[in-house]
Amino acid sequence: MTVPQKLVVVLSGGLDSTTLLYDAVAQGADVVRAVSFNYGQRHKKELDYAKQSAEKLSIKHTVIDLWSSGLTEAFSNSESSLVTDTDVPEGHYGEESMKATVVPNRNMIMLSIAGGIAVADGANAVATGVHAGDHFIYPDCRPAFISTAASALALGNDGFGSLDVAPIFTPYIFRSKNDIAFRAIELDVPLHETWSCYNGRENHCGRCGTCVERLESIDWAVNKFLDEYNVEVEDHTMYEDDAYWREALKRETV
Amino acid sequence: MTVPQKLVVVLSGGLDSTTLLYDAVAQGADVVRAVSFNYGQRHKKELDYAKQSAEKLSIKHTVIDLWSSGLTEAFSNSESSLVTDTDVPEGHYGEESMKATVVPNRNMIMLSIAGGIAVADGANAVATGVHAGDHFIYPDCRPAFISTAASALALGNDGFGSLDVAPIFTPYIFRSKNDIAFRAIELDVPLHETWSCYNGRENHCGRCGTCVERLESIDWAVNKFLDEYNVEVEDHTMYEDDAYWREALKRETV
Repeated sequence: MTVPQKLVVVLSGGLDSTTLLYDAVAQGADVVRAVSFNYGQRHKKELDYAKQSAEKLSIKHTVIDLWSSGLTEAFSNSESSLVTDTDVPEGHYGEESMKATVVPNRNMIMLSIAGGIAVADGANAVATGVHAGDHFIYPDCRPAFISTAASALALGNDGFGSLDVAPIFTPYIFRSKNDIAFRAIELDVPLHETWSCYNGRENHCGRCGTCVERLESIDWAVNKFLDEYNVEVEDHTMYEDDAYWREALKRETV
Repeated sequence: MTVPQKLVVVLSGGLDSTTLLYDAVAQGADVVRAVSFNYGQRHKKELDYAKQSAEKLSIKHTVIDLWSSGLTEAFSNSESSLVTDTDVPEGHYGEESMKATVVPNRNMIMLSIAGGIAVADGANAVATGVHAGDHFIYPDCRPAFISTAASALALGNDGFGSLDVAPIFTPYIFRSKNDIAFRAIELDVPLHETWSCYNGRENHCGRCGTCVERLESIDWAVNKFLDEYNVEVEDHTMYEDDAYWREALKRETV
């Protein structure tokens, strides 16, 4: 996938989108803006991580505050544990309980807003770090959704701005989280400067779905990097519990 | 077009969306919520009109404040006169200068947010009052955009909520503004309780594109209603200038 020339990057501050940002810059794209969203997620800490990474790469950073916009209040009938007081489920990312982390129409909302900003900024596309591992749980990370949303974005701004025909750039959509972690290491992304945990405490909990997935992928990528380049890489992220993920995986494969 | 059972209506407070709201209620839909947007438009007055109409019909009303979310600031590179200090153009709605009233990706942003709320509220569709007269200027009011955005909305929430397969309801998309004004009169919508003017002053200016279009359509509909039902209807809206629109039309037909 050739990287578009001028990009707006949707940056959550997590491993995937931060790697995407480093990747786009490494490939010579002009990233005109990184956009993050406060949608009342309890892991609001990720926004600080997003800001830090954008600053480090000298990229203009904008936080769209959907929380103060009234959207989160309007989502009060939603069952998502990310925006309500329900507990965030523990265990593997692929488990049924993770459905409680679905925020209604989240990606379409974020891509639409970032798309409008891309039109205003004269960018060619919006980039998002969705990957193959997201497909199972989140319908708005699947290729059919992304390509249709891209068509809508192009049609809705026909004659205005400089958007490409398919203006949503998703280089990881057919890649696994493992691949992204490996790419992060290749690009020398400081892993501890990314935030994944769905619980917004001092350190990563190590037990929620996204922590389990993060630990598993980083472990895989660190081993592969050692195999391929004979270089040992360390993850300096602090976890409350850095052993649980192996159990969770064992439990899943029983 | 059969009206979906449970609807979220995008309500600007203008003639089209207010008529749509009355129409949906008249046809027996359960309108679970009306959603309005503050996107920094200078005609913010329309939001008061939206609130008033929703209250009158006992429909829950939510204003999503994209202005305070930081979106409008992020649109600072946009050329739209609706969100910047550029003058709102005068003259007929169909003229080239009206392109200055295009807000980047406005409908996709509003439909995505209303779509998320519809999922949370268990509604079957989002309704919007786009009509055939909008197609020429606004790409995000065209049928190709709407049907593609509807597919994206359905795909992005597959398995969650109760959305229809084509969850954007646009009963006026192939109707003219004249038809909507006629429908408004049929439904006894108080015309002066709707706000169209792109300038947000005390009264409708009567000269901007949307005022000219409004006056023209209401005039047509009032005459048609008189012809068909022999009933005289009056528009109690106050205009700064209620004569200019005829000149603007004459100018156009020269």
